[in-house]
Amino acid sequence: MNILILGGLGFIGRNLADELVAENNVVIFDRTPAGKGSGKKNFVGDFFNVQDLEGVFRTEQFDIVIHLVSSTIPASSDPIYDIESNLVGTVRLLDLLKKYRVPKIVFASSGGTVYGNIDKEARVDELHTTHPISAHGINKLAIEKYIQLYHHLHDLNYLILRFSNPYGQHHQSDRQGFINVALKKIIRGEALEIWGDGSIVRDYIYVKDLAAITRLLIAREVTNKIINVGTGTGHSVNDVLRLLRQEVGDFQVIKKPARNFDVPRIVLNNEKLQSLINFNFTGIADGIHQTYIWLKAQL
Amino acid sequence: MNILILGGLGFIGRNLADELVAENNVVIFDRTPAGKGSGKKNFVGDFFNVQDLEGVFRTEQFDIVIHLVSSTIPASSDPIYDIESNLVGTVRLLDLLKKYRVPKIVFASSGGTVYGNIDKEARVDELHTTHPISAHGINKLAIEKYIQLYHHLHDLNYLILRFSNPYGQHHQSDRQGFINVALKKIIRGEALEIWGDGSIVRDYIYVKDLAAITRLLIAREVTNKIINVGTGTGHSVNDVLRLLRQEVGDFQVIKKPARNFDVPRIVLNNEKLQSLINFNFTGIADGIHQTYIWLKAQL
Repeated sequence: MNILILGGLGFIGRNLADELVAENNVVIFDRTPAGKGSGKKNFVGDFFNVQDLEGVFRTEQFDIVIHLVSSTIPASSDPIYDIESNLVGTVRLLDLLKKYRVPKIVFASSGGTVYGNIDKEARVDELHTTHPISAHGINKLAIEKYIQLYHHLHDLNYLILRFSNPYGQHHQSDRQGFINVALKKIIRGEALEIWGDGSIVRDYIYVKDLAAITRLLIAREVTNKIINVGTGTGHSVNDVLRLLRQEVGDFQVIKKPARNFDVPRIVLNNEKLQSLINFNFTGIADGIHQTYIWLKAQL
Repeated sequence: MNILILGGLGFIGRNLADELVAENNVVIFDRTPAGKGSGKKNFVGDFFNVQDLEGVFRTEQFDIVIHLVSSTIPASSDPIYDIESNLVGTVRLLDLLKKYRVPKIVFASSGGTVYGNIDKEARVDELHTTHPISAHGINKLAIEKYIQLYHHLHDLNYLILRFSNPYGQHHQSDRQGFINVALKKIIRGEALEIWGDGSIVRDYIYVKDLAAITRLLIAREVTNKIINVGTGTGHSVNDVLRLLRQEVGDFQVIKKPARNFDVPRIVLNNEKLQSLINFNFTGIADGIHQTYIWLKAQL
């Protein structure tokens, strides 16, 4: 298949391109000029500039567009910028998919933010109520609704993947992604910051698992579904600190006040996903080990 | 209480101002220069111009802001305009409410569009899934989420009212509001247009009931709730045509193709509302009669 990855040189994008190239013709669109990705062809451009974006669709015909671009993270503080970049940018993309008759979009939504606060001990399934407590989460949710609207009005097929918290190879941010940021600081000998008492629980997924799952769902032509992509297992920040100490020895931790846009706990129910592909997840200790080895080789 | 009505000279706004003036100090903000509303004080300005809007908050302190402004209707065809006007405009408003410490917002959401397609025969309650099939509905829903976000992050209190389809006095649009548009055309001797076979079902609410309900919910300080405001009774377009013929005699109807952004059926479950105020609704035949009398006096 001819697959375009928007944001194909980002964290998830690079892993996904690596995973898809064997069986597909992968084209990458990214703002990063250095074409180090594994796509057959790279376009350099700004997703938020509709001329840049349309240029790609004018030159190639795609079976699937995978949309991984986001200008914000949950900690971003400007909700209007979030709307004017991510939401408006994605609706412009949907108009291009309609205009150039691209049959299917795969969208990276956020299992970690669209649900908002959930009951203690629960794993949220895809039908759970959605009350995001961050602008980032509201925009991810609104994008999901627009994709479904374009399905309803214009027959665009979709696969919406609500990813939990990925970590692993090719991670680049210094602000988002606790495990990677922590390992990077440890390697640099810097103190590690956490917000709150360490009780916050997340469903950490090894990014190579996330990429393999996405490839399988695409190959099996799973269509017009919203699917949680997470391990179904929660780990607190304190759990992760313990696992990190097992891997690297001791390090310094600075506790900062809890942030009101962080949900206390999110663990995804992945029964829908497992009924489709029955995936064998990498254990978190192994994933941390692989990530540490990769990071040490980078720095 | 000091109450600001944004869009206070519109259809719902005029009815609501009439209803609130006896017990409250009502201030109106509207783009319409002619101050024929019943507010104590009128500001003329553009909601989508943040300077105009901020001017109001600089001069007066409000207990409640009622937000009725919308630049679009479900039939509007430009989703990006909808986002850039209604959604961005409302987030700017929320920032002003935070800045000027306004404790509460009452928001006119849309019971007719936020739910999307529902099961036959069902009445949707407030916990029903929300899959809008119009950009208008997605934006109303996203605004609800932003209001709840500002409640979570900044303690803004809210009352979100999911109104069903209002008809009655002070209606002005020639494009939206089937009963009013129909009566206006009949009075003018014009043919009436319907989309589809007349089987579309809506929960029509007399606008004076809607205004009285809103006044009661405000007076009883109902807070931080989403509430369906509808009669709980559905009428098809064919039902309404029959009721109109009873009122005015025969008229010509032109059938046009069904529109894909119209949900086939929407009837609101109003048990939550009735548990709070136990309201006695005006019957639709009576409401149509009152509307007809008012319209004849206008034209």
